[in-house]
Amino acid sequence: MLKVHTKGKPLSEDVNLDIIAKLTPGFSGADLANAVNEAAILSARRSKKKIGMPELQDAIERVQMGGPERRSRVMTEREKLLVAYHEAGHAIVAGGMPKSFPVQKVTIVPRGQAGGYTLYLPEEDSLRYTTVSQFEARLVSALGGRLAEEIVFGPSEVTTGASSDITYVTRIARAMVTRYGMSEKLGPIAFGEKEELIFLGREISEQRNYGDEVAREIDREVHRIVAEAYERTREILTTNRDVLNDMASSLLENETVDGERLRELMARVKPMKETETLANGNGSNEPPIVIAPPM
Amino acid sequence: MLKVHTKGKPLSEDVNLDIIAKLTPGFSGADLANAVNEAAILSARRSKKKIGMPELQDAIERVQMGGPERRSRVMTEREKLLVAYHEAGHAIVAGGMPKSFPVQKVTIVPRGQAGGYTLYLPEEDSLRYTTVSQFEARLVSALGGRLAEEIVFGPSEVTTGASSDITYVTRIARAMVTRYGMSEKLGPIAFGEKEELIFLGREISEQRNYGDEVAREIDREVHRIVAEAYERTREILTTNRDVLNDMASSLLENETVDGERLRELMARVKPMKETETLANGNGSNEPPIVIAPPM
Amino acid sequence: MLKVHTKGKPLSEDVNLDIIAKLTPGFSGADLANAVNEAAILSARRSKKKIGMPELQDAIERVQMGGPERRSRVMTEREKLLVAYHEAGHAIVAGGMPKSFPVQKVTIVPRGQAGGYTLYLPEEDSLRYTTVSQFEARLVSALGGRLAEEIVFGPSEVTTGASSDITYVTRIARAMVTRYGMSEKLGPIAFGEKEELIFLGREISEQRNYGDEVAREIDREVHRIVAEAYERTREILTTNRDVLNDMASSLLENETVDGERLRELMARVKPMKETETLANGNGSNEPPIVIAPPM
Amino acid sequence: MLKVHTKGKPLSEDVNLDIIAKLTPGFSGADLANAVNEAAILSARRSKKKIGMPELQDAIERVQMGGPERRSRVMTEREKLLVAYHEAGHAIVAGGMPKSFPVQKVTIVPRGQAGGYTLYLPEEDSLRYTTVSQFEARLVSALGGRLAEEIVFGPSEVTTGASSDITYVTRIARAMVTRYGMSEKLGPIAFGEKEELIFLGREISEQRNYGDEVAREIDREVHRIVAEAYERTREILTTNRDVLNDMASSLLENETVDGERLRELMARVKPMKETETLANGNGSNEPPIVIAPPM
Amino acid sequence: MLKVHTKGKPLSEDVNLDIIAKLTPGFSGADLANAVNEAAILSARRSKKKIGMPELQDAIERVQMGGPERRSRVMTEREKLLVAYHEAGHAIVAGGMPKSFPVQKVTIVPRGQAGGYTLYLPEEDSLRYTTVSQFEARLVSALGGRLAEEIVFGPSEVTTGASSDITYVTRIARAMVTRYGMSEKLGPIAFGEKEELIFLGREISEQRNYGDEVAREIDREVHRIVAEAYERTREILTTNRDVLNDMASSLLENETVDGERLRELMARVKPMKETETLANGNGSNEPPIVIAPPM
Amino acid sequence: MLKVHTKGKPLSEDVNLDIIAKLTPGFSGADLANAVNEAAILSARRSKKKIGMPELQDAIERVQMGGPERRSRVMTEREKLLVAYHEAGHAIVAGGMPKSFPVQKVTIVPRGQAGGYTLYLPEEDSLRYTTVSQFEARLVSALGGRLAEEIVFGPSEVTTGASSDITYVTRIARAMVTRYGMSEKLGPIAFGEKEELIFLGREISEQRNYGDEVAREIDREVHRIVAEAYERTREILTTNRDVLNDMASSLLENETVDGERLRELMARVKPMKETETLANGNGSNEPPIVIAPPM
Repeated sequence: MLKVHTKGKPLSEDVNLDIIAKLTPGFSGADLANAVNEAAILSARRSKKKIGMPELQDAIERVQMGGPERRSRVMTEREKLLVAYHEAGHAIVAGGMPKSFPVQKVTIVPRGQAGGYTLYLPEEDSLRYTTVSQFEARLVSALGGRLAEEIVFGPSEVTTGASSDITYVTRIARAMVTRYGMSEKLGPIAFGEKEELIFLGREISEQRNYGDEVAREIDREVHRIVAEAYERTREILTTNRDVLNDMASSLLENETVDGERLRELMARVKPMKETETLANGNGSNEPPIVIAPPM
Repeated sequence: MLKVHTKGKPLSEDVNLDIIAKLTPGFSGADLANAVNEAAILSARRSKKKIGMPELQDAIERVQMGGPERRSRVMTEREKLLVAYHEAGHAIVAGGMPKSFPVQKVTIVPRGQAGGYTLYLPEEDSLRYTTVSQFEARLVSALGGRLAEEIVFGPSEVTTGASSDITYVTRIARAMVTRYGMSEKLGPIAFGEKEELIFLGREISEQRNYGDEVAREIDREVHRIVAEAYERTREILTTNRDVLNDMASSLLENETVDGERLRELMARVKPMKETETLANGNGSNEPPIVIAPPM
Repeated sequence: MLKVHTKGKPLSEDVNLDIIAKLTPGFSGADLANAVNEAAILSARRSKKKIGMPELQDAIERVQMGGPERRSRVMTEREKLLVAYHEAGHAIVAGGMPKSFPVQKVTIVPRGQAGGYTLYLPEEDSLRYTTVSQFEARLVSALGGRLAEEIVFGPSEVTTGASSDITYVTRIARAMVTRYGMSEKLGPIAFGEKEELIFLGREISEQRNYGDEVAREIDREVHRIVAEAYERTREILTTNRDVLNDMASSLLENETVDGERLRELMARVKPMKETETLANGNGSNEPPIVIAPPM
Repeated sequence: MLKVHTKGKPLSEDVNLDIIAKLTPGFSGADLANAVNEAAILSARRSKKKIGMPELQDAIERVQMGGPERRSRVMTEREKLLVAYHEAGHAIVAGGMPKSFPVQKVTIVPRGQAGGYTLYLPEEDSLRYTTVSQFEARLVSALGGRLAEEIVFGPSEVTTGASSDITYVTRIARAMVTRYGMSEKLGPIAFGEKEELIFLGREISEQRNYGDEVAREIDREVHRIVAEAYERTREILTTNRDVLNDMASSLLENETVDGERLRELMARVKPMKETETLANGNGSNEPPIVIAPPM
Repeated sequence: MLKVHTKGKPLSEDVNLDIIAKLTPGFSGADLANAVNEAAILSARRSKKKIGMPELQDAIERVQMGGPERRSRVMTEREKLLVAYHEAGHAIVAGGMPKSFPVQKVTIVPRGQAGGYTLYLPEEDSLRYTTVSQFEARLVSALGGRLAEEIVFGPSEVTTGASSDITYVTRIARAMVTRYGMSEKLGPIAFGEKEELIFLGREISEQRNYGDEVAREIDREVHRIVAEAYERTREILTTNRDVLNDMASSLLENETVDGERLRELMARVKPMKETETLANGNGSNEPPIVIAPPM
Repeated sequence: MLKVHTKGKPLSEDVNLDIIAKLTPGFSGADLANAVNEAAILSARRSKKKIGMPELQDAIERVQMGGPERRSRVMTEREKLLVAYHEAGHAIVAGGMPKSFPVQKVTIVPRGQAGGYTLYLPEEDSLRYTTVSQFEARLVSALGGRLAEEIVFGPSEVTTGASSDITYVTRIARAMVTRYGMSEKLGPIAFGEKEELIFLGREISEQRNYGDEVAREIDREVHRIVAEAYERTREILTTNRDVLNDMASSLLENETVDGERLRELMARVKPMKETETLANGNGSNEPPIVIAPPM
């Protein structure tokens, strides 16, 4: 598909389409065309005759996050401090969960509606089949932002910045219980018919087809799953408080942490112990990039 | 109906319309026309002057699964292993239930949205009247995929791949309780009026016309039925762990298991004991092919 | 009304319009016109110059059951056995209930969507006013099909074939409780406003205007009524197991049982004892034909 | 208003417009025009040159009951017996309640959808303000039909013929509790907002704006009110069983009971004792005619 | 605004626009124009060349009550007695509550749909801010009609005439609890989102956004508030039974009570004791007229 | 954005666009254009050739409050007293909460629908991220108006004037619990899917996707949060009763309190003690103006 959209565009020699493909999992054709056009415009602005690799990478993040970097947006010192610890929290916790996607980049440069964000590298096959342990790793990492705020600034200073993380966590936990049979208590049963209402043009979020007792059990299981994930998040963050501080400092200093500096910091994170599972290796060396819910 | 759609098409001598009819239970006229056209195209591609039997069979599966084989789709080793055990689970468990449809083919070649699938041969009359024991066999076989994952990879490594199996199981169990009077506790009573809303152009999934107490009883009966089926699934899979491994290996090696190899493997499955019933023989020798919910 | 629709049509001398009128209770003008036209076509096919009585009777059943006889539909032996016992169950149980409509014909020749059906002769006045005991007789007879399956083939071999019987039974029992004040516990009160929604063009199945406690009582009363009817059905069928077997055999042998053979079999059915009621005689000698919910 | 609609119509000398006005409470202008036209047609059929009083009276009943007398409709003996006792039940019970409207006419001649009906003479002012005791009298009289069936034919022979009585009784009892503050337990509070939905063009039956506890109390109060009315109905009917039988006989013999014969029968009814109330006299000598819910 | 609508109309010298302004609180421009036109017509009928003050006052009441006086409407003696005590009840109870609006006029002359009505003089500022004690006074006065019926005619003779009072009382009590935080138990929290549904063109009566427990507490608080108001109403009416009788007699004799006679009667009413509040005086001497919910 | 809307407009030299920007947080382009136009009109009325700073400030408040000052609106003395204490309550309580926005201006000059209002100066970053302690400060300040009424005039004299404060408080407390995970009991989970219904053109207030137990917990947490905030409000107001009185007096005397007089009064307010938090300083010296929900 990528070849279709780059056809006739002058590409720099350093552009590797295989890497671009891995950077754009879940992109539609329109997304790809959009990204290639953005890259062409960026290259022109930078007086390049051909579309370069840095321009393509920037254009891809721009499409993913819903807008360009907004370095002009003035952030107060307090905001920067908050966002730095929030994003560092996501990254450190991901580093502590063996089944988490590796972290690729952490930044407090605003982009779109987000004040900062963390980029993950998902394993290719997890896009088709996700395991219980992978879901747990996502839950824990998504909760890392809020918990970093709580640990660093105190419970009365946590912010509304975690609101999309909370929505994301809720959706995963509910889906585990109601769609994927991942709650032993409720069993391999689907709860709630998805109804695509024609006159609305899209899916309504679920048609409840069960009684109050089951509703209560679902709520309790969702609560239990999130609460257990929160405890793990706390365990990892308190164990790795020093790395958290160092990454936040690094973000305040450099705005973005990636490459060697990121590898050094992540290498210092002490991971959670986990029960061994059979299929935890995979051969893909350069997995595509996926983005966590932005703050 | 088949004769109408093949009229004027050059058919190879090996094409047996009776067999084709049995391969296409539940096909609409449009489905049939679609399949014949696909077969014509496939035959042309293979430089055949007439439509051959293999092309017809391939075209029928293509229509059933919503698309062609996708050998080009790259699957990681971990995915192949997962799908192999999942599909082998369906097949082995079907083999252990006397009232199950016989298994015809198991494959890990992706097709449409599915990463692999298992083909069953339904008995002709079960399309009109289904018994409690046949429903149980379908429940048990549908749960075989998820349980194989659990037994082989451990509870924390089960995947979202069972999601359509879970939907299928839930629908059968609810229908047994609410439409077919197959729960002794709730009796021969229908629960929930099906409402075809005109302004939506189709049926809405049920109009609840009962109180909370009945809602709770329905939920409990559905849970009981699925839980009992799950226990049977576990019993069959643990009893036949060696055949499960062998079928998964065979799938990893050959991608598809059918014919003689399939018969050999299925013959080794130790079946569940069941109470004898009066009407368990039927005269149809070559029943049509039906497909289990794909993974 | 009948005279309007037969005007100008050549009728055979054996056609008795009074009998036809009794054969078509509940027919609309369009239904009647439809039946007369069907009869004309059937007569023409049979090279008759006038519309005969047999053609009219066949056309009427065709309109009632939603289609012609489908002798070409291949049924397996197991299906025939199942349908024969199911329909025999309806008929035997009707014979055991004094307030039931007399049975006119039992058949396992498929028609429309049905694999077989039982024809009843309703008393004329019951079309306007139905008594508690007549409702009970209808419930018991409707349950006869399912219970015959259970008794003959065992509980795990009952089928989905009873699904329309179950819907029918539920509607009667709910109406007794919620519309006709026939539950002493709930009293002469109507529950649920029928709402005809204009934008849907038809009635929605009820607007709940009562609390959870009443909802529970309604559910329990419906359950009690159906459960008691089921017990009566069981009593009649076990008492008359031999006649059940003989009628099923007769159906397997002749496909249809009516006339003298039916009278002989029904005469052997031992009826339930019932309390005497005042008004149980009526003067109509040839009541119209009504059809039970088909299997 | 009446004068407008009779202007230019030749009226017989015996026509008294004041009486006609009292016969048509609640008539719209269209209803009146309709009745006058019907009377003109009836008079013409009877070769009268002017519209007579009997034709006007017949036309008014025709408009009220939704159609002409249907003497041609064949009723079985059992139906006649049933309707005679049902209507006699309404009349006798009305006679036993001091606050009931006086009965004007009882008939088993079918009209519109009804198999028979009872005409009452409402007091003029009750059209604007209705008291608790008047509501009770209406409840008791409406229940007289069903209870007469039960007493005469036995509980298992009561019919669906009381269905509109039951709806009527439910609406009165609910309105007493939820609109008119006539339940001491629930107090002078309105429950449920009436919502006139514009896109439906009419009122939806109520928007529930209270919790489960209140819903339960409303249900219990409605049940209590109807149950107490039913006990009064039973008391009056068993006390006056002989008059009930005589009125039913008279109906079977003459089809209609009114005038002197009605006065004689009603004079024999022993009334319920009631607490004296201040305002139970009224000066209107010839009140207009109102019709009870027909059977 | 008033000046705009009277511009170019010949006004009598006795017309005082300041008084008219106070007589029309809550009037829209259209209401005002309507009233002025009505007054012009009335004056013309009475052969006045200029619009007089009595015509303006009559026209204003006409607009408020939805129609002209209907002296021609025949009321029975019993109706007059009922309405006289009902309206006297409203007035006497208002007189007994210090925070009530003063009563301006009581009448049993029918107007619009009402059989009689009571006019209050609201304090100007209460149109913007209403206190708990003012709400209580309105509740008590609105309940005065029903309770007068109960005390005078007995509990079984209360009528449907209080139905709009009951709706009014319910709305105030619910608003105190759910919108204005005037229930200590539920606190300063709003319950139920008001939703203006666009496709209906207007507000739907509330979107419930709370659980069953809160629903129950709201119902109980509403019940408590109304029950306490009812007790106060009873206390005032039984204490002032003699004034109630005298005002009812006066109404039966003169149809309307106002001016000096009203002042005399109201002066005899013994008021409820109340706790002193800071801000219970106001400087407005001639407050505008407001109308209680008519009977 | 501001530069776009002032382009081509003659601005006085005292106009500082940076200050205007801070005065208009949350303004849309249309709001800005509206304010600039209003300022131009005001300047023209005051015979100024250029748009001045006072005119711009007035125009901005006019847009925020939905209309111009309404000095012509006659308020009774009682109303003025009420509004003065209500607004003083908001201001004093804000002064007692360290995390509250500083108060900029308090006035009892009516504007739009409001009888008076209080202007706050929000910290710039709080527009993006709000902390628990900032939400608490808003809750407490919003409740200051109602509680001032209660303390000064007594519980039975509190008014409907707090109705928009109550709505505001409810929305914040519910959002803390259901969107921002700020209730420890319910955890970092989102409750209720926001549904934007296309056929309504806007968001419906929430799709409940949880059971009764969670609904009850949400209600209880909302109640607890508001109740605790109310206690703090009470504590601050009773501690600072003298300042409350002085500010109310000042408002009655001067209608508006700001500048030096406001600073003097606020300096006398004794604040609540709070736990120290890390990030409670910020560098912005002239934060933009935000307006509390008007009375």
